[in-house]
Amino acid sequence: MSRISPFLPLTLGLCLPLSVWGFEHFQPLPKAVQQPADNPASTEKISLGKKLFFDPALLGTNSTLSCNSCHKLSTGGVDGKTVSRGQHGQYTYRSTPTLWNIGFQTVLYWDGRSRSLEEQTLDHLRDPVISDNAHIGAMVQRLMDAEDYRQAFEAAFPGEDAVSADNVARALASFERSLLTPDSPFDQYIRGDENAISASARRGMVLFNDSGCASCHFGVNFAGPAPGPAMGPGDGFYELFPNHLGSRYDEQYGLADDLGRFEATGNLREKYMWRVPILRNIAVTAPYFHNGRVKTLDEAVRVMAKTQLGKEFSDGEVQDIVAFLNSLTGRMAPP
Amino acid sequence: MSRISPFLPLTLGLCLPLSVWGFEHFQPLPKAVQQPADNPASTEKISLGKKLFFDPALLGTNSTLSCNSCHKLSTGGVDGKTVSRGQHGQYTYRSTPTLWNIGFQTVLYWDGRSRSLEEQTLDHLRDPVISDNAHIGAMVQRLMDAEDYRQAFEAAFPGEDAVSADNVARALASFERSLLTPDSPFDQYIRGDENAISASARRGMVLFNDSGCASCHFGVNFAGPAPGPAMGPGDGFYELFPNHLGSRYDEQYGLADDLGRFEATGNLREKYMWRVPILRNIAVTAPYFHNGRVKTLDEAVRVMAKTQLGKEFSDGEVQDIVAFLNSLTGRMAPP
Repeated sequence: MSRISPFLPLTLGLCLPLSVWGFEHFQPLPKAVQQPADNPASTEKISLGKKLFFDPALLGTNSTLSCNSCHKLSTGGVDGKTVSRGQHGQYTYRSTPTLWNIGFQTVLYWDGRSRSLEEQTLDHLRDPVISDNAHIGAMVQRLMDAEDYRQAFEAAFPGEDAVSADNVARALASFERSLLTPDSPFDQYIRGDENAISASARRGMVLFNDSGCASCHFGVNFAGPAPGPAMGPGDGFYELFPNHLGSRYDEQYGLADDLGRFEATGNLREKYMWRVPILRNIAVTAPYFHNGRVKTLDEAVRVMAKTQLGKEFSDGEVQDIVAFLNSLTGRMAPP
Repeated sequence: MSRISPFLPLTLGLCLPLSVWGFEHFQPLPKAVQQPADNPASTEKISLGKKLFFDPALLGTNSTLSCNSCHKLSTGGVDGKTVSRGQHGQYTYRSTPTLWNIGFQTVLYWDGRSRSLEEQTLDHLRDPVISDNAHIGAMVQRLMDAEDYRQAFEAAFPGEDAVSADNVARALASFERSLLTPDSPFDQYIRGDENAISASARRGMVLFNDSGCASCHFGVNFAGPAPGPAMGPGDGFYELFPNHLGSRYDEQYGLADDLGRFEATGNLREKYMWRVPILRNIAVTAPYFHNGRVKTLDEAVRVMAKTQLGKEFSDGEVQDIVAFLNSLTGRMAPP
């Protein structure tokens, strides 16, 4: 897998500041997500998906939750909880990940066990903790019975059988692929505005790159390759966490309690393997890690340095890296 | 789809009694099940699958259940309950179907939502009602730690990573494909022994054929096409049930409460669609139907006549059909 950015010629052409040299696998946010051949986006699909996303009725007649309850778009695409709660107060499996820029991920869930947004959405709709529908057919029937939804489905999926569980998933996935956060200070900087980020953030960016963070956190989402020539949807980019077992953080934050992909696949070689998570907007998506046990970004950086790199950063270094991570927060406005 | 039996030349060659003419889509039980290309059976796999099937430890350290608890091979492959109970007394989704001759089905579950025995087995192993493992990885770890299992896996799956969730599913599926019930009176009859079934059973066979039961209940398992040229594994054979809604049985036995495939797929055209169930050994697999609400075979025949064919059979006709169904019970001995 090549880590050379396809955007390098573009960024060079934009009179790149010298400080960006050497960051060839840092990438600005593209204007759009690559669409799957079997579910290309359309205005009608995105509009329907948005309606479904915010509607608690999707998840049951008496549902107290919509998709937006946990993946709250106005607060970074997360709900700020350690672990979200389901329809009847049950805990969900892991901490809710953000949906902003999710279309640049090749697999879904912390452990990457789902290979497309469509598949992951159907999985959620069938999850008895998340959905209060008796079954997925009851959900479809209710949408079918609602005149406004029937029309919206027919517009989004012309032809017969427009209202179906698959089409609910397709519309939601199209909407989610439209959730982009452009114009972060980092993007402005990497596109040529030298003053878009502070001196501290620039030092943090160098440290992030040189100390090894960027070995895994590279690419559009600082989460490995986005769907494209190097890696298709469904091909996950996984790393070991904790990479160095045995630090004080294991017990303090229960880092070794969850076996990651192994819990999904039963493959012994996938113990403690995780999908590399998105760092864009990380400053506004606390708490951190799959179990949501770390509350601040400072502490998350210290934990990562220790468990992944076997390093202890100084207070000043932590501050610089956090300043860099703060620069990854973009403009969040649902389409 | 052709309903002409590939066994016709064979049965003809065996000096077929005249009474069998006209039953060209009734088929004797083949000697073996067609094996999937990616998981051909072996003695080692079947032996490992058998060990796993009867071992409660597969489903959790303190599991009270093995596969055999619900799919009890010594009692027709079922537990005789309306709906089986899970690890902690929870009800399972529907009545447990038999595993005898299951390898001749193209899809699994009452609604056919699983496309292979391997897929269905993994689904069961991950089901929190059925499995008491914290996660599927915990199950693999325990098998890995048990010397006898590790050796059995290495024998069944030579090469590295022999112990895995996928291989648990492969071994169980291979074992299940070996569960055949040969030498039923029906098989002896159709192969040429005129006295293998009673006169009443012979009348029942004619009535079963002529009144329309055999329109859906044909083929090896009297459940539609087995995997073969006409239909591959994963291509389900589905029918509407109840076909005639509105009979007294709908309320009496809750027949309209479960929407069948629609509940799994959300496809409105699949409301009340079901995989045609196996009739081999039906006399020893009470109670009947997906919800296990009908206790006797007599009553099941009356319900089917009314809901599927819009008919009422006389007592004598019911008796004859039941005599025929009784002749479908074969010899049950796990390999």
